Amino acid sequence: MAWKRISDAVIRRLPLYLRVLEEVKDKQISISSQELGDMAGVRPALVRKDLAWFGEFGKQGVGYDVEFLQDELRKILHLDEPIHMALVGVGSLGHALARYHHRRFMEDPIFTIKLVALFDVNPNLVGATLDSIPIFHPDEIAAVVPDMDVQMAIITVPSDVAQETGVALAQAGVKAILNFAPVNLEIPGNVHVANADLSLELQRLAYYIGT
Amino acid sequence: MAWKRISDAVIRRLPLYLRVLEEVKDKQISISSQELGDMAGVRPALVRKDLAWFGEFGKQGVGYDVEFLQDELRKILHLDEPIHMALVGVGSLGHALARYHHRRFMEDPIFTIKLVALFDVNPNLVGATLDSIPIFHPDEIAAVVPDMDVQMAIITVPSDVAQETGVALAQAGVKAILNFAPVNLEIPGNVHVANADLSLELQRLAYYIGT
Repeated sequence: MAWKRISDAVIRRLPLYLRVLEEVKDKQISISSQELGDMAGVRPALVRKDLAWFGEFGKQGVGYDVEFLQDELRKILHLDEPIHMALVGVGSLGHALARYHHRRFMEDPIFTIKLVALFDVNPNLVGATLDSIPIFHPDEIAAVVPDMDVQMAIITVPSDVAQETGVALAQAGVKAILNFAPVNLEIPGNVHVANADLSLELQRLAYYIGT
Repeated sequence: MAWKRISDAVIRRLPLYLRVLEEVKDKQISISSQELGDMAGVRPALVRKDLAWFGEFGKQGVGYDVEFLQDELRKILHLDEPIHMALVGVGSLGHALARYHHRRFMEDPIFTIKLVALFDVNPNLVGATLDSIPIFHPDEIAAVVPDMDVQMAIITVPSDVAQETGVALAQAGVKAILNFAPVNLEIPGNVHVANADLSLELQRLAYYIGT
C-alpha cells in the first residue's frame, strides 16, 4: 500500500481531524480546511496537504463533506470496525489507564478500540476481573492474544520486563504497542511501537518554559 | 532567541538523545551520530541535522563528546536546574501519574522535574499529602503557583473543567502544560500545551495494525 510511506507526523494529526468532524457533524454538512485547521490546531495548508495523501476529498470553494471525510479517515485509521486491545501490567498506572480507557470506551460510541484482556504476574489479580475485563498471567499471552483476536497492546510493566513483554506480544500477533515503560523496546518484525513515556514528554515540554 | 523557530519534531527527539548519552556516559568519551541514532531509534543523518540547530557539537571522524553534548542538551531543554511542577486532578489517573512521576524523580538523579503541588476539589484530599506532596484546592492555584515557583503542570481533571483549569494555571504563571483531558485547550499567552490524550494516541496507533 502507498499509505506505508506516509510519515508518522501526518498519521498523528488524523485523529485530531476525526475529533473535529465528530464535533461538527450534527451542525454542518461541509467544512473548510480553514475551519478544520482552526479547530484541530493545525495550519489550513497543512490540513489540505495531509488529506491530499489519501485522495481528493475536498471541493474547491466548498470544502470537505463532513460525513464522507469522517468515513474515509476511519477507514484509513482502521477505526471503521472494532479493534481488540490488551494491557500488560495492572499496577497503579496500568490500573488507572485500564479504567480510564474503559470509561472512555463505554461513553463514546465512536471509540472502537476495546480493552478485552489484562495481564499481570500478581497471583491476587490473575483470574479476577477489572471493570469486567479478565486478568490473565503474562505466560498466557501466546494463547490469549490469538484467541481473543488482540491487535494492539498497552505496556505498563516495570522497565526490566518491558522488553520481554513486548517480544511476547509481538510473537503472539500484536501489531501495535503503546509502551509506558521508560525503555526503548526492540521488537522484531513489522510491529509499530509508540513510546508514551511521561518522563520524555515532560523533558521535551521543559524546553518551552524558557521560550 | 533563534531556538524559538525550531520545530516540535526536533525538540521531541532531544530527550531521546539525552537518554542515550546518560546510558553510555560511564563507558565512553565520545559517540558517533551512527551509534547515537541507532540507540535512539533515529536516522544518523537526522541526528546530525537535529544537533546542528544548536551549534557545532560534533567533530568530523570523532563524533560528539558525550559529556559536553549532555550538558548542552540539558541547557537547551532547561534541565540543567530543578523545575517545579504541579498536577491538577488527583483522580485515579492523576493519582497514578503522581506516584509514577514521584518514584521516577526519587530514583533518577538526573531527572530534574519535581512534582511539588497537587490540586483537587475533593474535600477529603485537600490539606492531605500524597508521597509527601501537598494537595490544595484548585482555587489556590493563583496563590500556590507563584509561591512555589511552579513552571509546568499536568492536567488530569474531567473534560468539562479542563479549559478553566488550563486558564487558571496559565494566568498563575505556568509556561508548559501536559493535558490528559480529551479536549483541545485554548490557552491565552505564550503557554505551550501538549496533549497526552490516550484515546488520540491509540487511534493513531490503530493505523499501523493494517500496514
